Amino acid sequence: MSQEARLIIADSETDADLYYATGFLAPDDFIFLQTPSEKLMLISDLEIDRAKSQSRIKNVLSLSHYLARAKNSGNKTPTSLDALCQLLGEKNIQKLHVPRTFPIASADHLRAKGYTITFPEDTYWAEREIKTPQEITHIHDTQQHTEAAMEEAINLIRQAEIQNNLLYLNGQPLTSETVKHRIQTTLLERNCNASHTIVACGDQACDPHNEGQGPLKAHQAIIIDIFPRNNATGYFADITRTVVKGQPSTELQNLYDTVLAGQQIALDHIKDGADGQAIHQKIVTLFESRHYKTGEIKGRMQGYFHGTGHGVGLEIHEAPRIGKTAQTLRAGHVVTVEPGLYYPTRGAVRIEDLVVVTQNGCENLTTYPKFLSV
Amino acid sequence: MSQEARLIIADSETDADLYYATGFLAPDDFIFLQTPSEKLMLISDLEIDRAKSQSRIKNVLSLSHYLARAKNSGNKTPTSLDALCQLLGEKNIQKLHVPRTFPIASADHLRAKGYTITFPEDTYWAEREIKTPQEITHIHDTQQHTEAAMEEAINLIRQAEIQNNLLYLNGQPLTSETVKHRIQTTLLERNCNASHTIVACGDQACDPHNEGQGPLKAHQAIIIDIFPRNNATGYFADITRTVVKGQPSTELQNLYDTVLAGQQIALDHIKDGADGQAIHQKIVTLFESRHYKTGEIKGRMQGYFHGTGHGVGLEIHEAPRIGKTAQTLRAGHVVTVEPGLYYPTRGAVRIEDLVVVTQNGCENLTTYPKFLSV
Repeated sequence: MSQEARLIIADSETDADLYYATGFLAPDDFIFLQTPSEKLMLISDLEIDRAKSQSRIKNVLSLSHYLARAKNSGNKTPTSLDALCQLLGEKNIQKLHVPRTFPIASADHLRAKGYTITFPEDTYWAEREIKTPQEITHIHDTQQHTEAAMEEAINLIRQAEIQNNLLYLNGQPLTSETVKHRIQTTLLERNCNASHTIVACGDQACDPHNEGQGPLKAHQAIIIDIFPRNNATGYFADITRTVVKGQPSTELQNLYDTVLAGQQIALDHIKDGADGQAIHQKIVTLFESRHYKTGEIKGRMQGYFHGTGHGVGLEIHEAPRIGKTAQTLRAGHVVTVEPGLYYPTRGAVRIEDLVVVTQNGCENLTTYPKFLSV
Repeated sequence: MSQEARLIIADSETDADLYYATGFLAPDDFIFLQTPSEKLMLISDLEIDRAKSQSRIKNVLSLSHYLARAKNSGNKTPTSLDALCQLLGEKNIQKLHVPRTFPIASADHLRAKGYTITFPEDTYWAEREIKTPQEITHIHDTQQHTEAAMEEAINLIRQAEIQNNLLYLNGQPLTSETVKHRIQTTLLERNCNASHTIVACGDQACDPHNEGQGPLKAHQAIIIDIFPRNNATGYFADITRTVVKGQPSTELQNLYDTVLAGQQIALDHIKDGADGQAIHQKIVTLFESRHYKTGEIKGRMQGYFHGTGHGVGLEIHEAPRIGKTAQTLRAGHVVTVEPGLYYPTRGAVRIEDLVVVTQNGCENLTTYPKFLSV
């Protein structure tokens, strides 16, 4: 009787499901197969010895070997899919369960050969959402490095002097680039790698993913958002703080206090069984009650136009989400809590912590203090 | 009459075809659609203003807007695919041409709604393989930063002292980690980001993708492989050098000379119309004529068990390949030339340059000298 197996074909550098399954990082596609009785990898000569020593998979098979078998069966120019079919024949497998992201070209090729392909309604490894104590330790560890980088960044801003409403350090304009460079070198020393770090000031900060550039300004909000990956473990972390060097306007201080109150609502309501959508809506309601409207104004999105949080693990954005869509939170979820408000004429604030959902609430993995003025 | 369109749904952070199409980097999935008459993006509120200002696409449409339309059509919980279908209906599009990597779940969903899905035999944007002069400038620029990092790395090794067959710098053992850190900080200062940099010594170097760790040894080969991405342009570069601090054995020197001769064969034969497979085979033949055999020996791959080169551009590994598979090289291809030999008992050497294929030969984008002893 034919058997069903799980199949992933991807590079584990970008495919977290494959890294989760194998514990092996590689930049090129390889094949992972999980039958009812065993887990297998089919991999190139280039990677096979490293896979044998570094992966969690005991059966690491040679792609060359199965390509040669396909050739012996009469296929003059076999591909890695033909090699896979040799292996599937050997294991008597006809049904394949793949991730939702499985490439259509490979799926159609396998279907044409008679294989049945299924994929899940949502996540491939349901257990990936619920972090083990060891995974939480890894994420917490990355978050501690992230906080160290935040401390370095804020110290640069704190030490700056104000001249003509611009920040200066050691006689030079203090720029977004300088602060980001300090963040990245701090993280490198801690074996973490940060891409797309945000240090955005004033109007730049009103676009939540604008990474920021040029001289930092006094008396205006500077949003600092850091989300590195730990090279040793593969786990991400995420933190955002908003600070002002100089004197924030009353309007900006009110914005900050409102975002902080919004974040507190989430921190108070997150627990096993809570609905992410309801939590997000409570924050929206608070903001609206304080007359912070959301929508497109003068051709630009303003207000609170992103979600409250996202899962963090082997991907920086993974399930679950806390936002406009119904989503039940579960103990062991690790999620960001990051409300923000953005108004080009009034200022921008985002405050983000990283928490573990527990039975009765949440545990904050973030200890870095929250303050506006530095 | 219904029209055909190109469709990509991905995040452009990992999907180079989408970045190539839009010039816009985003960490979450968004939709790109190219009809016979226009190019469109459908993107979330979070990214829409950044997309309008940073992407090359003029028609940046609001995902929220099309989700609302889907809701108005009676769908209570529309997804981004439902929003896409609203847009496709508006544009009278029934046939969609997607990349080979298009997710099976989305493809099956669209097929179930009556759309025809096709994908190419190989690359999605055939023109991506052939680099424009501007792209070559970008890659060359990244390669220059990469060479600066190589210089820093080799200088550390050059300055080291030998004690008990180990390298010491400033009284401390010089480690793979120290050299990699110097490489990464050098690249960061130049706005480049390097992951998985290799500084592997002795037996570690015999596994081509082993990143290396611990104290570096004297009189043994140290393979240094650096392949960063330029954050400003998105283009990668790639270089490898093999050096020895101290006295290489005659055997290791012979290995080095042989790999260098192998590389020269490729540099002499690469040109528009040349067959990559034939070039690879010439190197294999040279190595075999000097009695350097390839295969599994004592449970470990030894000899020359990887390809001669790969394309470099918006991905570190992209088409074309120079290796065991037939592949015609074309003017404008940018490829690595990186033969290597690996023998756990005798040593390991890899030497890699990055070249542009031209009508009559190739132009080497790499100027860093080649030498074994430092």
